[in-house]
Amino acid sequence: MSHAQEVAARVTAERLDTFMRQALTRCGVDEPSTAAVSRALLTASRMGTDSHGLRLLPHYLRAVQGGRVNPRPGMVFSRRMPAIGYLDADDGFGHLAGYTAIDHAIAMADDTGLGAVAVGHSSHFGAAGCYPLEAARRGLIGMAVCNSDPFVRLHQGQGAFHGTNPFAFAAPVEGEPPYLLDMATSAIPWNRVQQYAAIDRELPADVAADAHGDVTTDPRQVRSLLPLGGAQFGFKGAGLAGVVEVLSSTLAGMLNGFRLLPMGGPDMSTPRGVGHFFLVMRPDAFTDRATYQASMRDYLDDLRAQPAQPGAEVLAPGDREWRCQARRDAEGIPLDPANLTAFERIAEELGLAPLTVR
Amino acid sequence: MSHAQEVAARVTAERLDTFMRQALTRCGVDEPSTAAVSRALLTASRMGTDSHGLRLLPHYLRAVQGGRVNPRPGMVFSRRMPAIGYLDADDGFGHLAGYTAIDHAIAMADDTGLGAVAVGHSSHFGAAGCYPLEAARRGLIGMAVCNSDPFVRLHQGQGAFHGTNPFAFAAPVEGEPPYLLDMATSAIPWNRVQQYAAIDRELPADVAADAHGDVTTDPRQVRSLLPLGGAQFGFKGAGLAGVVEVLSSTLAGMLNGFRLLPMGGPDMSTPRGVGHFFLVMRPDAFTDRATYQASMRDYLDDLRAQPAQPGAEVLAPGDREWRCQARRDAEGIPLDPANLTAFERIAEELGLAPLTVR
Repeated sequence: MSHAQEVAARVTAERLDTFMRQALTRCGVDEPSTAAVSRALLTASRMGTDSHGLRLLPHYLRAVQGGRVNPRPGMVFSRRMPAIGYLDADDGFGHLAGYTAIDHAIAMADDTGLGAVAVGHSSHFGAAGCYPLEAARRGLIGMAVCNSDPFVRLHQGQGAFHGTNPFAFAAPVEGEPPYLLDMATSAIPWNRVQQYAAIDRELPADVAADAHGDVTTDPRQVRSLLPLGGAQFGFKGAGLAGVVEVLSSTLAGMLNGFRLLPMGGPDMSTPRGVGHFFLVMRPDAFTDRATYQASMRDYLDDLRAQPAQPGAEVLAPGDREWRCQARRDAEGIPLDPANLTAFERIAEELGLAPLTVR
Repeated sequence: MSHAQEVAARVTAERLDTFMRQALTRCGVDEPSTAAVSRALLTASRMGTDSHGLRLLPHYLRAVQGGRVNPRPGMVFSRRMPAIGYLDADDGFGHLAGYTAIDHAIAMADDTGLGAVAVGHSSHFGAAGCYPLEAARRGLIGMAVCNSDPFVRLHQGQGAFHGTNPFAFAAPVEGEPPYLLDMATSAIPWNRVQQYAAIDRELPADVAADAHGDVTTDPRQVRSLLPLGGAQFGFKGAGLAGVVEVLSSTLAGMLNGFRLLPMGGPDMSTPRGVGHFFLVMRPDAFTDRATYQASMRDYLDDLRAQPAQPGAEVLAPGDREWRCQARRDAEGIPLDPANLTAFERIAEELGLAPLTVR
């Protein structure tokens, strides 16, 4: 899934963390927000989710400098029932909202077995997988969804309506890193269209639409993405995006994605009111810990033993990510030429020592 | 989505209900199981989910006559934490397990805001949407998933591994029937392949695979379905099927779908040990009832106002189903020639008055 990128430099996670924290701090961002943003970007960059890793730092700095994101939010959590809470994120960084919300959901799940938190007045939270991953690391099943501004057309629709509305799910596996699914409900990512347009390459069939909603493979004609399932079966992807929308904006009383201000601007001063939703479950409470662990093990053993097509490989969700993380922890996290330039510019603008790269 | 079928006769819901109950009772099925099976099949048939409606009655009768399904189960529910329970379905009908489990999940959600039930030692439960629908009718959000025997290949895999592993979600909408998504995580239904093989029609591109896992459009060559997303993006559908599998078999400590006995037999005497999972949430507990209702209304108004492609229509999940239900409640539920023959044979074999049709 990941696309080969030109590696201009590599950086250790530690140095990247230091640089990102310095840059955010220089922009007036408080310590909890700084720590949360850096942690989420590092998590994504280490496991190879490059669309949601260090690449986003310049965007987040613009958002906080422009006033869209509150650098020192007073987030307020209300536990409204034993297993349900609401977090008002006070227009702060979505990453802090995400880690805060999943912590509350975990605490409620410790009490009741389940915990769900709707988050309102938030902003972009990076890779959705970051938050369920925290639950899985503590032995719990986690789920996160988030709405976004319109990129994806409805089934049989003409123009963009839903966002790429990601769905992320993580579950603990004894003796290995978590099972982790983190996927957009669109047929392809918007980034992919931009990359293909830049190199004048034809898109795969049945993933994107032109101004009339008709399928096109010309990236310059693309005005919306198709929902997962494409032109014929996109009612499934659109339905999943709808579930994400109901959970993330409706439960939090936020505007639905069609009415969200675009993430990319030009308005970088008005808070967007993004909604998120998090769910945590205790997997060992349905039967018992040993049964859960053995069932999960048997399932993954069966899955990984399936014969693959020639030259291909059968993977469980997360296998690719953990393999990438091990490699990047050894070799360093890659920056492409655009990342490198952007980070050099940040150092210059904010008067920071440049990021030390290899 | 629905395929035109040849209508041999029509029947009222009331008469269909009576006939199905008589047939089940004649096979020794107890009253709660009889009521649950008929209720689920009627729900599906009324809303046009014909693959999971009255068509399945002959199958269920064979399953109970063969001994696979326990006609008088002693289902045992254990509330293991305030929001989590386990239902041992004692190899009874999945429909009774489903309605029982969703009732317990609703009761727990009334207490804590959320309720989840894993069901073990169950059997086929019909249309997954039946159970979240019960939650939505009582003002709650519901979700149901279920594993099934292998039909769908993994991303880059050669043979069938996951079942069609459905995901169903329903949410209440003030003043109209619920929002309802009920979808398989495969690219198309297995039924569709069989229908196309019968009429020698080519399949859509990128939905099914041959014995090597390669995409084919020849229905007679099909040995597995592709996961939602097709050959290139099937890691998404396979990941969703995996989430369904983890929730429905792993949490319940049941065998994963790859190891399930085939629904279609030939063994109709051994219990299959199907797992289900149900989740219920109180949508008005995150903010408040008025906010939830207004947000849901605004979202659906925005969605239904989107321009459609020429000759097409933009629908919210459930719109098609409720429209079909209104039509069938007026005109009667259609039986195709195969249904009619099967129902005549049941009446003859069990010594029942034939189903009165129009």
